[in-house]
Amino acid sequence: MTTLTETQLLSALNWRYATKKFDPAKKIPAATWTALEQSLILAPSSFGLQPWKFIVVDDPAVRQKLMAASWGQTQIVDAARMVVFTLQKDLGEADVTHFINRTAEVRGGTAESHGGYKNIMVQSLAGAKAGGTLDVWQSRQVYIALGQFMAAAALLGVDTCPMEGIAPAQYDEILGLTGTRYTTLCVCTAGYRAADDKYAVAPKVRFPAAEVIRHV
Amino acid sequence: MTTLTETQLLSALNWRYATKKFDPAKKIPAATWTALEQSLILAPSSFGLQPWKFIVVDDPAVRQKLMAASWGQTQIVDAARMVVFTLQKDLGEADVTHFINRTAEVRGGTAESHGGYKNIMVQSLAGAKAGGTLDVWQSRQVYIALGQFMAAAALLGVDTCPMEGIAPAQYDEILGLTGTRYTTLCVCTAGYRAADDKYAVAPKVRFPAAEVIRHV
Repeated sequence: MTTLTETQLLSALNWRYATKKFDPAKKIPAATWTALEQSLILAPSSFGLQPWKFIVVDDPAVRQKLMAASWGQTQIVDAARMVVFTLQKDLGEADVTHFINRTAEVRGGTAESHGGYKNIMVQSLAGAKAGGTLDVWQSRQVYIALGQFMAAAALLGVDTCPMEGIAPAQYDEILGLTGTRYTTLCVCTAGYRAADDKYAVAPKVRFPAAEVIRHV
Repeated sequence: MTTLTETQLLSALNWRYATKKFDPAKKIPAATWTALEQSLILAPSSFGLQPWKFIVVDDPAVRQKLMAASWGQTQIVDAARMVVFTLQKDLGEADVTHFINRTAEVRGGTAESHGGYKNIMVQSLAGAKAGGTLDVWQSRQVYIALGQFMAAAALLGVDTCPMEGIAPAQYDEILGLTGTRYTTLCVCTAGYRAADDKYAVAPKVRFPAAEVIRHV
């Protein structure tokens, strides 16, 4: 594996910013987009359960409806691509079984031979459900995927804008998720910054390292 | 900015896995670790409010105590470095003011000139607090940083293991967070895989793309 230098990594992470204005004429090459979808698929999650579905919306009519459910933010229609990050709610034993079956499929062997952690997983999910924290816990996993996606995009030279200022219930309705196990958490638009997006050149605002990193 | 090829990106993300066994003799070069701390600092967050503190624990005695609060998982003491991801609870107007003051410091101008979104931010936080979702919302931001950190580490050839199987209240006690505005969410250990970690060569288990990505 070729690794990056520290300078290459940090120049990409510094180049990234929440793009307010995309150039609607610039499209993301297919190979690049495929890699970004892979970065979603490859994201880590608790126990590896992947409690999510990523909805890539290209249909312009649907984009228009989603913009209306996003306080009119124009990135929704101007960005080359957009991903709706949805949570799979109410994980339970059937999902664990499904995951273990998939493990057997990918790694070989029987489901039983991969079931060593089954009880721990089922009990963890059931305990969280009883405590009312199951969906909160799993929703955090979805944000791991969001973090990996934005970092991956920056490294490929693709701009992104993470967006939480949306009406999730309206998104669910528009995308046919109402009444299903999936629910909208947030959006990430992706494409290329407009030449006149003034935020592109504004220095990044971060608290001093000593304020957010503590050494023990 | 030098961008990666799709192949370079995906080879790093495929190389990454949740390392079960670290080589305790292998240390992370200082320049590499500094870059990884920067990847935390540079992580995106809602409104840019950075509702977090990252605690890097090097003290072996503290590491021992934390291992006991982590079901005895040996990564806590064997990994070269470890980061405790903590949430800043109960964000409110004073935090928004602090952020706006920092914006003026970094970008120049007065705090007033950067205060255009102040009311929206304060009202969003207050609304979430009233609805009981403030800390949940902000905790998701911390996982963006976790996602960016793990991706950045992989790209620099550093192994990681994200760990939620810990006792957060015991962590808070050990790290002196109890009674403060910060609380432990999760851990990420970082270092280099042991030559005999059998999980390093196990194929990654992911559901088929059609199951987790939907195109509209």
